[in-house]
Amino acid sequence: MASFETVAKQFVDFYYTTFDTDRKQLAALYRDNSMLTFESGQQLGATNITEKLLSLPFQKVAHKIEMLDAQPTATGGIMILVIGKLLVDEEQQPLSYSQAFHLTQDSNGQYFVYNDIFRLVYG
Amino acid sequence: MASFETVAKQFVDFYYTTFDTDRKQLAALYRDNSMLTFESGQQLGATNITEKLLSLPFQKVAHKIEMLDAQPTATGGIMILVIGKLLVDEEQQPLSYSQAFHLTQDSNGQYFVYNDIFRLVYG
Repeated sequence: MASFETVAKQFVDFYYTTFDTDRKQLAALYRDNSMLTFESGQQLGATNITEKLLSLPFQKVAHKIEMLDAQPTATGGIMILVIGKLLVDEEQQPLSYSQAFHLTQDSNGQYFVYNDIFRLVYG
Repeated sequence: MASFETVAKQFVDFYYTTFDTDRKQLAALYRDNSMLTFESGQQLGATNITEKLLSLPFQKVAHKIEMLDAQPTATGGIMILVIGKLLVDEEQQPLSYSQAFHLTQDSNGQYFVYNDIFRLVYG
C-alpha cells in the first residue's frame, strides 16, 4: 500500500493537472458528502462543488505547487496543506493561495476529498 | 453543543493568544498521537511538539488571523484553515502564514489537535 506522502503527492498533482486542463473531471474526486469552502462560499456534494468550480470566471488557469505537506489522520485519512501560486487568463502576476484537503477512503478503499478549503493569500 | 464554527473560532483565538503569551501552555492542546509539521520539520506527540514550539528562535511573537474557515469531518472532528500574519521580535514587516488544524475529540468529548501543519507564505 502506498504511503500517505505518496498518495498525497499523486492526488495533488492529479488534482491541479485536472483543474488546469478539464475542470469538470474533478467531480470524480468528490462524493455526495464532500465539502468545499472556496473563498468563503460553501458547497456540499460533488454536483454543487463541480458546478462552483466550473463557474469560476476564467478561461485559462495554471496552478504551481510550492509547498506540499501531508499527515495521516486517526481514521485512515490524509490531511494535506498546499501553498502555491496560480496564473489566470492573460495575467502575468501570479496569485498566492493556500488549500487544505482532507482525503478519506470510501468502502472500496478509494480516496476521495471529504474536506476542501481554498483561500487566496494576499502579501 | 457548540457549532463547529464556534469551536473552531474559540480554539484558534485561544491557540494564538496562548502562543503569543505563554507558548508552553500549548502542550494542553496536543496528545501523545498529535502531529505537527512546522516548516517541513515533523514532530509526534505533545512533548516533542511543545519542545519544538519553545525552541523557535524569537522572544516576542504576535499572530493576527486574517481568514478562518472550518468544516466538520465525518468522525466528529473539525478541519480548520487559517491565513494570517505574524510579527516576531522587533520586526516591522509582518510575515504571511497558513496553518491547517484537524481537531478531534477524546473519549471525554474534549477537542484536541490531532493534525497541525504550519507554513510561511512568501508573496
